[in-house]
Amino acid sequence: MKLTILGCYSATPRIIAHTTSQVLETRGHHFLIDCGEGTQIELRRHKLKFNQIKHIFISHLHGDHYFGLIGLISTFRLLKREVDLNIYGPKGLKEIITLQLKLSNSWTNFNLIFHELDAKDSQCIFEDDKVEVHTIPLDHKVYTNGFLFKEKLFDRKLLIDNAEAKNIDVAYYRKLKQGADVYNKDGVLIKNTEVTTDGRIPKRYAFCSDTAYSEAIIPIIQGVDVMYHESTFLEDQAALCAKTKHSTAKQAAAIANKARVGRLILGHYSSRYKDLEPFKNEAMTVFKQVALAKDGKIFHI
Amino acid sequence: MKLTILGCYSATPRIIAHTTSQVLETRGHHFLIDCGEGTQIELRRHKLKFNQIKHIFISHLHGDHYFGLIGLISTFRLLKREVDLNIYGPKGLKEIITLQLKLSNSWTNFNLIFHELDAKDSQCIFEDDKVEVHTIPLDHKVYTNGFLFKEKLFDRKLLIDNAEAKNIDVAYYRKLKQGADVYNKDGVLIKNTEVTTDGRIPKRYAFCSDTAYSEAIIPIIQGVDVMYHESTFLEDQAALCAKTKHSTAKQAAAIANKARVGRLILGHYSSRYKDLEPFKNEAMTVFKQVALAKDGKIFHI
Repeated sequence: MKLTILGCYSATPRIIAHTTSQVLETRGHHFLIDCGEGTQIELRRHKLKFNQIKHIFISHLHGDHYFGLIGLISTFRLLKREVDLNIYGPKGLKEIITLQLKLSNSWTNFNLIFHELDAKDSQCIFEDDKVEVHTIPLDHKVYTNGFLFKEKLFDRKLLIDNAEAKNIDVAYYRKLKQGADVYNKDGVLIKNTEVTTDGRIPKRYAFCSDTAYSEAIIPIIQGVDVMYHESTFLEDQAALCAKTKHSTAKQAAAIANKARVGRLILGHYSSRYKDLEPFKNEAMTVFKQVALAKDGKIFHI
Repeated sequence: MKLTILGCYSATPRIIAHTTSQVLETRGHHFLIDCGEGTQIELRRHKLKFNQIKHIFISHLHGDHYFGLIGLISTFRLLKREVDLNIYGPKGLKEIITLQLKLSNSWTNFNLIFHELDAKDSQCIFEDDKVEVHTIPLDHKVYTNGFLFKEKLFDRKLLIDNAEAKNIDVAYYRKLKQGADVYNKDGVLIKNTEVTTDGRIPKRYAFCSDTAYSEAIIPIIQGVDVMYHESTFLEDQAALCAKTKHSTAKQAAAIANKARVGRLILGHYSSRYKDLEPFKNEAMTVFKQVALAKDGKIFHI
């Protein structure tokens, strides 16, 4: 998995601080996660190809997480996109987008497929043979989801020398990679583990958007390799944080610790903080594997 | 008048090419004209104060002219603006904005006053004691207006030595500046022109947004000091230009010439043209006083 942070600041875009948007590349997919104003410009800046984005996940309908979506869709249209575009987000998003397309008389030539979300429990909202995406219900001032991206099992690695020695027909190699035991040319059952080893270990990434401290998410994100968790404030603003249903860096770290995640990425910083190092320092009092999201930063998972 | 070009490209924002937005400063007003995606960032870049913007004029509902509006309004809200905001634009704009405010449960603390436009003839849509703004109905694929900004007469300049010599009570000085004849302390009628001279000459600026070549606008913009007129294409793309209801640089210049404007500013260039000089050259075959809009450029009128 490769995660590119296009923007990681809260509230309002500024000259050198973009609002939330990320691209997660995994198993041939380029998933766009949230889409603050100007996201299309950041996609260009980071040379991410528009046509590879086929699924966009919007956590909630606060502007710093979706105001760039209508512009991105319009640009796809102007570039004569033909590939389907799937959009997953809260109920109401379809109305916002289609109203604007209607009033500009600018319908898309590609299929624009909305998957509107309103469930309160975690759901699988996308699945193919390589990846699953589940919602992570969060606790914010409006209906909000995070998203859990799970790679499915990779094929087992075939030990060709062993398979040949065991006199297995090549026609069964695909089955072996999928984990099955097979009969060889002599009619003898060969156990899969005799001729294969484990494939690559599937990774999991959890994107936890705007939320108050919520232990309810722990069972969903338990043991993920990397968790992004918002940290709008430091503990010095705990009261404001509670009022606005955001998290402090320390709270994000407490979730990371209790869920035993591999690594925590912090983001969604309030513009009141000029220096980001205190976020890392505060989180590390609770959990050691902490990284700071920064616009343009790339994480390999 | 001072005109700041925040963005002057068509269609879609790119890293160094912003879509349409301008600020016209005149007689204490900061009028924002169109508001493409990312306009709020360009306002910050050019150090234009958010609170001075009290009137926003939107020409039409194509995204490159208004997708930045909802973000700007949201930022005004986050900055705890209290000053009224007036928005002038096509019918439908109010629904787009209020739907998004409703779904994010983020109503503004300031008055958001929509003036929706649907008239087909030119109308006065704003007037105070110093400025008038009129619509310029344009010919585009959706309902579109340009905007004519007219300074009203400045006060006449009082020649204080003359007024004193004529024995006029200072209580009448205000009336003199407004052009009235007055009686002096001896009961003699003093003609205004004996004690005043002409004030500053009022200026007029015409913003002609997306439009096919349209001579119908000439009576409205006749003799303005400066006209901005879109020139999406050069004559090499005349067919595409007609189909999309845009103008070529030469057509913009023909309008400038027939309306006898003081100066023509070109803009709204298609991204297919890497070099802008040909726009100026093509226009100058018809009309001499041509300038190219560029992002960040300032024009003094």
